[in-house]
Amino acid sequence: MKFTIKRDALNTAIQHVSKAISGRTTIPILGGIKVTADHDAVTLTASDQTLSIQSRIALDTAIGTLGEVQTTGSIVLPAKFLIEIVKKLPKDEVVVEVNGLNARIVSGKSEIDMAGMDPEEFPQLPNIRKTDTLAIPSDQLVELINSTAFAVSTNESTPVLNGVLMALSDGKLQFRATDRHRLASHSIKIESDLRLSNIIIAGKSLLDLAKVLPDKSAPVDILIADNQALFRFGNILFYSRLLEGTFPDTSKIIPHEFKTEVVIDTKLINDAIDRAYLLSREEKTNIVRLATIEEDGSEGIEIMSSSTQIGKVLEQLPVKDFIGEQLKVAFNSKYVLDALKVIDSEETFVGFNGPMSPIIIKPNGSEDALHLVLPYRTTN
Amino acid sequence: MKFTIKRDALNTAIQHVSKAISGRTTIPILGGIKVTADHDAVTLTASDQTLSIQSRIALDTAIGTLGEVQTTGSIVLPAKFLIEIVKKLPKDEVVVEVNGLNARIVSGKSEIDMAGMDPEEFPQLPNIRKTDTLAIPSDQLVELINSTAFAVSTNESTPVLNGVLMALSDGKLQFRATDRHRLASHSIKIESDLRLSNIIIAGKSLLDLAKVLPDKSAPVDILIADNQALFRFGNILFYSRLLEGTFPDTSKIIPHEFKTEVVIDTKLINDAIDRAYLLSREEKTNIVRLATIEEDGSEGIEIMSSSTQIGKVLEQLPVKDFIGEQLKVAFNSKYVLDALKVIDSEETFVGFNGPMSPIIIKPNGSEDALHLVLPYRTTN
Repeated sequence: MKFTIKRDALNTAIQHVSKAISGRTTIPILGGIKVTADHDAVTLTASDQTLSIQSRIALDTAIGTLGEVQTTGSIVLPAKFLIEIVKKLPKDEVVVEVNGLNARIVSGKSEIDMAGMDPEEFPQLPNIRKTDTLAIPSDQLVELINSTAFAVSTNESTPVLNGVLMALSDGKLQFRATDRHRLASHSIKIESDLRLSNIIIAGKSLLDLAKVLPDKSAPVDILIADNQALFRFGNILFYSRLLEGTFPDTSKIIPHEFKTEVVIDTKLINDAIDRAYLLSREEKTNIVRLATIEEDGSEGIEIMSSSTQIGKVLEQLPVKDFIGEQLKVAFNSKYVLDALKVIDSEETFVGFNGPMSPIIIKPNGSEDALHLVLPYRTTN
Repeated sequence: MKFTIKRDALNTAIQHVSKAISGRTTIPILGGIKVTADHDAVTLTASDQTLSIQSRIALDTAIGTLGEVQTTGSIVLPAKFLIEIVKKLPKDEVVVEVNGLNARIVSGKSEIDMAGMDPEEFPQLPNIRKTDTLAIPSDQLVELINSTAFAVSTNESTPVLNGVLMALSDGKLQFRATDRHRLASHSIKIESDLRLSNIIIAGKSLLDLAKVLPDKSAPVDILIADNQALFRFGNILFYSRLLEGTFPDTSKIIPHEFKTEVVIDTKLINDAIDRAYLLSREEKTNIVRLATIEEDGSEGIEIMSSSTQIGKVLEQLPVKDFIGEQLKVAFNSKYVLDALKVIDSEETFVGFNGPMSPIIIKPNGSEDALHLVLPYRTTN
């Protein structure tokens, strides 16, 4: 195998596939990136047990050539070193030449010899046969991921909760994640007659995907087959193994009516809870209390937290709207901040059904996003 | 004590003194920031065992008032929480009110109660009586620090080597640091008849100082008395305890004549050694080899490193100038990179006296900066 390629094109592809390199793999071949040269393209592939990413660099582009393949072939090169060295090569052009399992990379007067590994030992990419394809804009997929994947469980005892549930029906694509203490759900409308249910993808994989996805409305094809999800965009194939098991039915715990409803400025409540969080964190519990107040005939809320060591924080906030009963409730402020951080509307709706029932947080006037946080059961 | 103050002025002063807060102190009062209100100023002080920083906020400034003191007084407030909460307060204006050891901070509708500590228990700042003052521009002091303090020893068994030696004679101020394997020295010319010798200041304190110093030519007064150095600039007093002991006489190990002299483009050699370092790091030794070469009658150097696991890097570089014997030498590439990083001239001089003698690196044509790296004694 021998090819010439632009350093920056090679580097970009390496950075993309590097998300599938696990630092702690015990299988040596998975610590490598497979490099394959066909007659008109150089293809890089990386894989851990759950995730595989392939990036294909087509050498002939509309704005000129990115390189040339002299001899086709394949090798697996040590990922960690490759990721760092390629971006530091001195010249714009790089020559890669492989003899047996020895690779030589030359750029200007810089010459790097690397011991490669046998490409035959590298795991095959999942074989996804022709299947139905769902196309969605990249920026909307990023929003679905970033609005939900933070809420997956990090506890490995229930693997299904480490994943995000992807459901599609009636032209609505919904992502949902929960760690038993909170739930995040986000949906978008989509032109498709497909139905998908109980598709569960590791939250970690999706967060890696969001980092690689282009930050614009370029289309992403989603293909589901057997035990794999494939996201296809640009020159990149992103495979994630589906998590096995049945996602819990969370629809029943989501209330649709509330005893207390508040509409509040999103930044105001976020900043107030953030300050209360700073103190609550000292107690390791993150407990912050919220109480509705009435002063001079106008409604508002109070946010409180305290630490035995340091002291207490008390915040008073005006509300835009208030309906229902007065209330006192306590919650994990970190969970509420996580939810408020991904709400991009100016006003936020918060709904309560007394101090023992789930709190619902969503962008005011929208049904696309919903966050649920279980309250703390405290005695006062 | 009660005062009103602009949030940003208070926050800036807190960030400045926070460099003297040690996260791991076992003495509770040192985990606090002392806040004192006089009739026209609010003063913050923080201290660990080695370092004390005081920032005085004069309330009446040329461009308007920064606040007002209603009642004078003093308290010590928990630093970690104060550092984070003040910058997040909702309004531009902050009211601080203290009753006994209870402090209340109010900003808009945000109200924070803190348990303070007794200011009488807070360590007194060192008392530096009238002494000779050395004035130098802030940016030159930053350069002296950043060119030398990285080379201090991190091994605590010889405390004197954890410090930077500051010497002044004949109008030349010199900083020097060594960890026995390498040495960094930098000097500037200064208008002063003062003489200073064996003044040793902890490298860590100086690096903290460099972060607080203004990034311009504003003057910094340096005062040395008893066992303290005081750096005075703007509204800030920065005290560092001097390290006890005698700094080794390093002048004898610095060669002034060389068997081999090379002048080379600084960026070229830095980038080549950086690539070789990436591989040498895999072996934990950081060993990189350098050899002079002669090809087609023109001189050059080769940079090499290898890792048994991964492979090898070979770099060829042209030189701008070459005098003397051919040479092969091995060294710790991290030490050489540290030195090259702070050389700001386009060309670098490197001098050798055979494979067993110290390597000298300095900006070409300048006697102000000098770096010494001991070679590795290898068998081939």
